[in-house]
Amino acid sequence: MTKSALQIARAAYQPKVPAALKGAVKAVEGATTQSVADQEEIKKLFPNTYGMPIITFEKSDETFSSPAIHVGVILSGGQAPGGHNVISGLFDGLKAINPDSRLYGFLMGPGGLVDHKYKELTADIIDEYRNTGGFDMIGSGRTKLEETSQYDKGLEILKQLNISALVIIGGDDSNTNACVLAEYYKANNTGIQVIGCPKTIDGDLKNEQIETSFGFDTACKVYSEVIGNIERDCNSARKYWHFIKLMGRSASHIALECALQTQPNVCIISEEVEAKKQSLDDIVNYIAGVVAQRAENGNNFGTVLIPEGLIEFIPAMKNLISELNDFLAHNEEEFKQVDRTEQRAYIISKLSKENADLYASLPEGVARQLSLDRDPHGNVQVSLIETEKLLAEMVGNRLAEWKKEGKYNGKFVSLVHFFGYEGRCAAPSNYDADYCYSLGYTASCLIAAGKTGYMSSVRNTTAPADQWIAGGIPVTMMMNMEKRHREMKPVIQKALVKLDGAPFKAFAANRENWAVNTKYVYPGPIQYFGPTEVCDQTTKTLALEQAK
Amino acid sequence: MTKSALQIARAAYQPKVPAALKGAVKAVEGATTQSVADQEEIKKLFPNTYGMPIITFEKSDETFSSPAIHVGVILSGGQAPGGHNVISGLFDGLKAINPDSRLYGFLMGPGGLVDHKYKELTADIIDEYRNTGGFDMIGSGRTKLEETSQYDKGLEILKQLNISALVIIGGDDSNTNACVLAEYYKANNTGIQVIGCPKTIDGDLKNEQIETSFGFDTACKVYSEVIGNIERDCNSARKYWHFIKLMGRSASHIALECALQTQPNVCIISEEVEAKKQSLDDIVNYIAGVVAQRAENGNNFGTVLIPEGLIEFIPAMKNLISELNDFLAHNEEEFKQVDRTEQRAYIISKLSKENADLYASLPEGVARQLSLDRDPHGNVQVSLIETEKLLAEMVGNRLAEWKKEGKYNGKFVSLVHFFGYEGRCAAPSNYDADYCYSLGYTASCLIAAGKTGYMSSVRNTTAPADQWIAGGIPVTMMMNMEKRHREMKPVIQKALVKLDGAPFKAFAANRENWAVNTKYVYPGPIQYFGPTEVCDQTTKTLALEQAK
Repeated sequence: MTKSALQIARAAYQPKVPAALKGAVKAVEGATTQSVADQEEIKKLFPNTYGMPIITFEKSDETFSSPAIHVGVILSGGQAPGGHNVISGLFDGLKAINPDSRLYGFLMGPGGLVDHKYKELTADIIDEYRNTGGFDMIGSGRTKLEETSQYDKGLEILKQLNISALVIIGGDDSNTNACVLAEYYKANNTGIQVIGCPKTIDGDLKNEQIETSFGFDTACKVYSEVIGNIERDCNSARKYWHFIKLMGRSASHIALECALQTQPNVCIISEEVEAKKQSLDDIVNYIAGVVAQRAENGNNFGTVLIPEGLIEFIPAMKNLISELNDFLAHNEEEFKQVDRTEQRAYIISKLSKENADLYASLPEGVARQLSLDRDPHGNVQVSLIETEKLLAEMVGNRLAEWKKEGKYNGKFVSLVHFFGYEGRCAAPSNYDADYCYSLGYTASCLIAAGKTGYMSSVRNTTAPADQWIAGGIPVTMMMNMEKRHREMKPVIQKALVKLDGAPFKAFAANRENWAVNTKYVYPGPIQYFGPTEVCDQTTKTLALEQAK
Repeated sequence: MTKSALQIARAAYQPKVPAALKGAVKAVEGATTQSVADQEEIKKLFPNTYGMPIITFEKSDETFSSPAIHVGVILSGGQAPGGHNVISGLFDGLKAINPDSRLYGFLMGPGGLVDHKYKELTADIIDEYRNTGGFDMIGSGRTKLEETSQYDKGLEILKQLNISALVIIGGDDSNTNACVLAEYYKANNTGIQVIGCPKTIDGDLKNEQIETSFGFDTACKVYSEVIGNIERDCNSARKYWHFIKLMGRSASHIALECALQTQPNVCIISEEVEAKKQSLDDIVNYIAGVVAQRAENGNNFGTVLIPEGLIEFIPAMKNLISELNDFLAHNEEEFKQVDRTEQRAYIISKLSKENADLYASLPEGVARQLSLDRDPHGNVQVSLIETEKLLAEMVGNRLAEWKKEGKYNGKFVSLVHFFGYEGRCAAPSNYDADYCYSLGYTASCLIAAGKTGYMSSVRNTTAPADQWIAGGIPVTMMMNMEKRHREMKPVIQKALVKLDGAPFKAFAANRENWAVNTKYVYPGPIQYFGPTEVCDQTTKTLALEQAK
């Protein structure tokens, strides 16, 4: 690997860790816990891992010799900055427990466990990846560990390698599955512990016990860097409206955080759209209204942030997509016979009045995507819909109507952007480098303490790292029952943007000012070597949530 | 303006300058010069500003008191990182000459001079913008100063404000116009000097005397940051081909520099395509060939860089666009009558065989853009063509053909990106901060030395700043005659990528290795505070060009 100058300099960074982890630790147990909801059902499903206490690690005066442990590690799902630091923290923790401990990485995600693809992670390999972005040390994948046959296949290789604990680094689904696996291995007396680590740039894995998922900090800072640059361009050229879509399908934390960092003219929050039952038309009117208002002041430019998942949060669009999926699934053959130029009219003629009207109002490109670009199960591929283009085009059309009616007299030229892959593999910020390393190190402590069904937890992270609190949270504690594929399943509750939470309230209190006046903030690129107020800031979201 | 932590910390940065500028300077004149070509014609057109000597500034032992000078400054054309530092260097230089000197900024580009829109740039304003990106201090614009009526209108306000020198910060066209203006003001004995500064992120304003245009360094580093992040994602997920288009219509310096920094699997260089008379088909085959070769090794992923201007460098596409422009200009009414669904067939029936075949081979979206999305003059809007999508789609189609023929057996999923606005207004790197400040400071020295028709020049910039050489280059020296809008005009020769130059040769020597093997380099974000090997690197292009 040819390394950049920054990579070489950054390799020497020693992540900051909680004071308690700087020597021998003892596990202090809190009171027993219960799940966030549906306690009876969750308890029944997890008889061996339910109700366990929260663990906190504290400094211990005793040092004691522990036997060597063999541990396996898996990266699950989408990339997030800091994954390599979780693994290096875990590695260092295991070596501190006993220098003969070994760490194995399963390759390309959970599939590596099932297919017995792995490699031993030696000190040389670990050192190559300290403080780097990406998941390329062992790769990641989206195979879901849900079947007992997978668990049994996994058990074979774990036994063969003498592995007694597995660390699964993933999002809410992966951690749910980690807990099911923990329960299964415990119920079957396999002697194998399973520990989870909270990862996802989307920021939707957090709760009372888990302050944030790793990667969110770095990814949002990268997006805010380029959004800030675009805003400054916007404010210099004064002639474009930039529509910027941001990754994050199931929650709008990224868009909200980037808005707090960069103060754009408009930011749509999906959770608010859903709560207020807004229509696509409402959103278009809102954005067009801001454009018109700014035009009155001679400001024919602006920046709009849009969360990737927006379409699915608009109740009317959800209905349309659902009827389309249904209709096309049942009439595939007939639809295929329709001439390409007639398809739009055909679909309009077949939908219910309400959905037909909405479909007819969509620009041609999007209408085509909705009816033609379908996944192998026949469903609309919502992630392919270019919401940023859709909104830019519809806002342009609305403004043209208003111009005819004499209600608007500005210029509107739009440019579109989508940021996602730009941030998922960035080298972790100091925060993520420290947080991830600490999470990994804490996982090793949970293993040494004989725990299973826990998520590694590092809290109080808005304070200096020295004061961070390391411990473990029973995964069952975060669970409730939800419908998935027509079945009720125990899952970790997904954290959506709370409309009564401090981050959203801070945004809502300022957005009218940001809309009319130009209040852009330019965060600039992540800095690794500068003054602490530049290099060690948390996200605004976390700071606001933790502020008392 | 709410400032980010980085902005606040960065404001204190004191740009590094050539040793000669750290006190009183004297202007040392070299031999007389001549234009790079068409000497007789250029000389005739610039009787007052032709043949002047190159100026170099050296340390002077004498300090002498100079009268206060009033100077105007204009930002012309697209934004580039460092513009504010040119202005602050100019300001500091003028104040060093005489504390009563004044600086006026004309607003929103050259139009501000003609329309008499300006503001005085006081120390408070200057301090607000030191080391920041963007052109928002005074704005920029694309009005071209080409008419004597504009010059005369400008003269009115210059006289009114007692301004005796004008600094125009722009690209090749703006500097050409600056020189025409210098000649006009000299010929008419107005007493007004005009000095240019070399700006453009595209990197196409450079020659024997001007090492690089400012902004290129920072913009390429921002693009390389996000390209590197995408490459790392690509190498972690191992399932996507990323097609990344990069700004820069008239030359491929940005794509080449980013390739040298990030070592992607493919980078297309427009100048090579033109020199080798490659067709669109050749390019598609080349990329598909790399995809197929990587698939044989199980690597169904990769990164492709594409310069924005590619389409116009493909001789066959240029012919097609030219025939289309011609045909549609003459048959607009008839074309308007054609039903939307019949337009493609109609156009194919009207074009020459060769162009009809090429047009028929294009994906629907692009074909539509070529025939429908036209500017007010009826011309194809080449800049709106999504070349990255075009190539991704055509490569996908080609691979599907090869699969049928048994020549390819991989998976191909593509994602597209376009980076341009993300880098034009980034806060300048140390290099650009230093270079721009020095250019501005040098401009003040040229003014004090009574020069006009010069471009501010800072050379030897691969050495430590102390050893940089400040001076002035007669703009006429860089000129030749070129056809513009059917007329021969004196213009600064545009610098294209030279196929026998060191940067292209370094790329060409490595690209086969980078194509097959995964050799990505992850430069990471621009650093302002770290070790010098991280913070003070020049571009690879400049380093290779200057290496002896």
